[in-house]
Amino acid sequence: MYAEIISIGDELLIGQTVNSNAAWMGQELNKIGIEVYQISTISDDKNHIVNALNDALKRTKLVLITGGLGPTRDDITKYTLTEYFNSSLVRNEKVYKQVEKMLKKRSIPMNDLNRKQADVPERASIFINYAGTAPAMWFELNRKVVISMPGVPYEMKELMTKQILPSISQYFKTPVIIHRSILTYGTFEAKLAEILSGFEDQLPPEIKLAYLPTEGVIKLRLTGRGDREERIKKMINREIDKLYKIIPKYIFGEQDDSLEKSIGVLLKEKGETLCTAESCTGGMIAHQITTVPGSSEYFIGSVVAYSNRIKEKELGVNSATLEKEGAVSRQVVEQMAQGVRERFGAGYSIATSGIAGPAGGTTEKPVGTVWIAVAGKNGTYSRKYIFGNDRMRNIRRSTLAALNLLRQYVKGELEHL
Amino acid sequence: MYAEIISIGDELLIGQTVNSNAAWMGQELNKIGIEVYQISTISDDKNHIVNALNDALKRTKLVLITGGLGPTRDDITKYTLTEYFNSSLVRNEKVYKQVEKMLKKRSIPMNDLNRKQADVPERASIFINYAGTAPAMWFELNRKVVISMPGVPYEMKELMTKQILPSISQYFKTPVIIHRSILTYGTFEAKLAEILSGFEDQLPPEIKLAYLPTEGVIKLRLTGRGDREERIKKMINREIDKLYKIIPKYIFGEQDDSLEKSIGVLLKEKGETLCTAESCTGGMIAHQITTVPGSSEYFIGSVVAYSNRIKEKELGVNSATLEKEGAVSRQVVEQMAQGVRERFGAGYSIATSGIAGPAGGTTEKPVGTVWIAVAGKNGTYSRKYIFGNDRMRNIRRSTLAALNLLRQYVKGELEHL
Repeated sequence: MYAEIISIGDELLIGQTVNSNAAWMGQELNKIGIEVYQISTISDDKNHIVNALNDALKRTKLVLITGGLGPTRDDITKYTLTEYFNSSLVRNEKVYKQVEKMLKKRSIPMNDLNRKQADVPERASIFINYAGTAPAMWFELNRKVVISMPGVPYEMKELMTKQILPSISQYFKTPVIIHRSILTYGTFEAKLAEILSGFEDQLPPEIKLAYLPTEGVIKLRLTGRGDREERIKKMINREIDKLYKIIPKYIFGEQDDSLEKSIGVLLKEKGETLCTAESCTGGMIAHQITTVPGSSEYFIGSVVAYSNRIKEKELGVNSATLEKEGAVSRQVVEQMAQGVRERFGAGYSIATSGIAGPAGGTTEKPVGTVWIAVAGKNGTYSRKYIFGNDRMRNIRRSTLAALNLLRQYVKGELEHL
Repeated sequence: MYAEIISIGDELLIGQTVNSNAAWMGQELNKIGIEVYQISTISDDKNHIVNALNDALKRTKLVLITGGLGPTRDDITKYTLTEYFNSSLVRNEKVYKQVEKMLKKRSIPMNDLNRKQADVPERASIFINYAGTAPAMWFELNRKVVISMPGVPYEMKELMTKQILPSISQYFKTPVIIHRSILTYGTFEAKLAEILSGFEDQLPPEIKLAYLPTEGVIKLRLTGRGDREERIKKMINREIDKLYKIIPKYIFGEQDDSLEKSIGVLLKEKGETLCTAESCTGGMIAHQITTVPGSSEYFIGSVVAYSNRIKEKELGVNSATLEKEGAVSRQVVEQMAQGVRERFGAGYSIATSGIAGPAGGTTEKPVGTVWIAVAGKNGTYSRKYIFGNDRMRNIRRSTLAALNLLRQYVKGELEHL
């Protein structure tokens, strides 16, 4: 079954607010087996609302509207819908009490604008908004449903979760939709598509595969549709198992994992610790690692050695090596990794040295040249990468590459590369 | 003049990706005087694309499409548009060279899927995508324009900024719109609006003021509309001068400046250097500073001292102080700032120590408690901040607060706070 979302608000069209409401609603509707067919973002304008609603109702039998329910003059959704459904406004005592309660809590005096929040269309079923003043409204017409909700994210989410989603589930009888994603790093979309072309061909018709790439990480999402939840789950799990066999070395996690989270899990399993010595990444690896709650259990710290003097003094890099090979070299990055591991007394270490750009490149070592090393009790491994010309992308891609190299090292996979 | 955006991608409808592309495009189109009438988010489905495009072209004469241009089977935008505009695909040598170049750079072999990226509709004007493989396409039909771009954000932004927005301005002869923004830090939107209420009242009708807040930094954007560019420019400059007189201590830059850029300018002016000692920010301050091209001129490096042992060993923090006051204290953060400055031989230093959360809080020092210190030849200054419960927001807000504290110190403004 399909639904549509209409997001009302000028702030969305001028880009002042990103439409995160619609994304969240899409996720939640999917979980109860409803697919979003289209999201239409429109302005607080009567004709525009009517046209968008007409279009959406031609395509689907469920339309969820957010926004335009505030007390001020530019909020016209309620009045437009009342007219659209040939209804009229009546005072709702339950809503009035909720408005009174909220105003008291926020120390705002009751006035005519606020009082009007309690007027609702006679034809609509009303859901009290316990987090705000504007209630949600449920209209029915020829077995089609239109629901209007406030645009304030936490009010909308509270209404959806506790009242609206259960009501939708009950009203419409819908099939089961299940998603499961795996995360890969270390190859490219076209290459992956080539490797997985046979896998794609053998997928049962109930299962679809999607590639979702974001700067180096490619998410592979399997979506299954059907009547019986258990059957679809089993089918998806079987296909995911196949993926683990076809591309084992690229998979680092599932669903909302990240390289830094998966490293955290690995290190905690082994009771190991980690530190970093960063030149071109400038602290971003340490930053990414410490975004993970509880990372203080395994992350000791870092030396950001931007100047060569710090590479020598704080990391023990040999000055003759620095002079002979240059800071961006296998020898220096390996000494950095070994130096910080010893000094910080950690099980593992990561080191980076490269030319992030835009300046500093030479013919031999162009902008985007990055050396990355990982060190541990099984020795030191290093690898050279050639990224692009964009400073920020070079920093981000070096960070991902470094995290992945460590992940492979900790898992004992580096020898097989 | 109005435009519409069609965002193509199942990942947007199931809420796996938030549609930040559309918001960014809305902002950029506004800057050249084009309002977005509707954003339609739809699936990678041929009929759906055709219907959405028909609808959009009924309402406006400019439609921007993103997504569905990848090399895999689920990407069908190019094929759909080729058919829609009664065209056929031809190999484009310039695009082919770009695809070859990108693949070589990424060490990926050319295959049939990649080769197809270089086939473009004969009827379209082509914009080479210098950040990726899929080019942008510009179609014209009865003085209406349809533009198709890749959905990868940095590829789309690069294409829009350098090639597509200028082409749109030229084709549709848009009015003169001039923007100038100043950036403030250290106060809140409501407070700033109160201070600037008189300023707003006296603005000439051609000039509009907008508040654009993002986590601590508030951008004040003045927009001028008119016929004569020189006149509007002069008017805007006059108003900006007034702002510098009304709120001098909050302004740290203009347009796309950032705290880290403005610190870089200040340090270069003074020929000074900087280093950091980070606990709760985990390297994010060093990372922010090193996002600025040329930061190696003044940034020496950092010690991320996540464990207390590193605070003692690498920064010389007194173990008795650590025991008595705890790591999150004025004494410890000041010793960290002094320690790293001495060791690294820098003119200035920044240090942070706090509880980012979600765990680790106590009644006395709840999650969100952060001490920040700056040190230099005029002594050490420190300040306590109480942020919120969200780990990522606490890390980001601590980073901004620390950068601003240093900026004020370097400018000699700290005594007046």
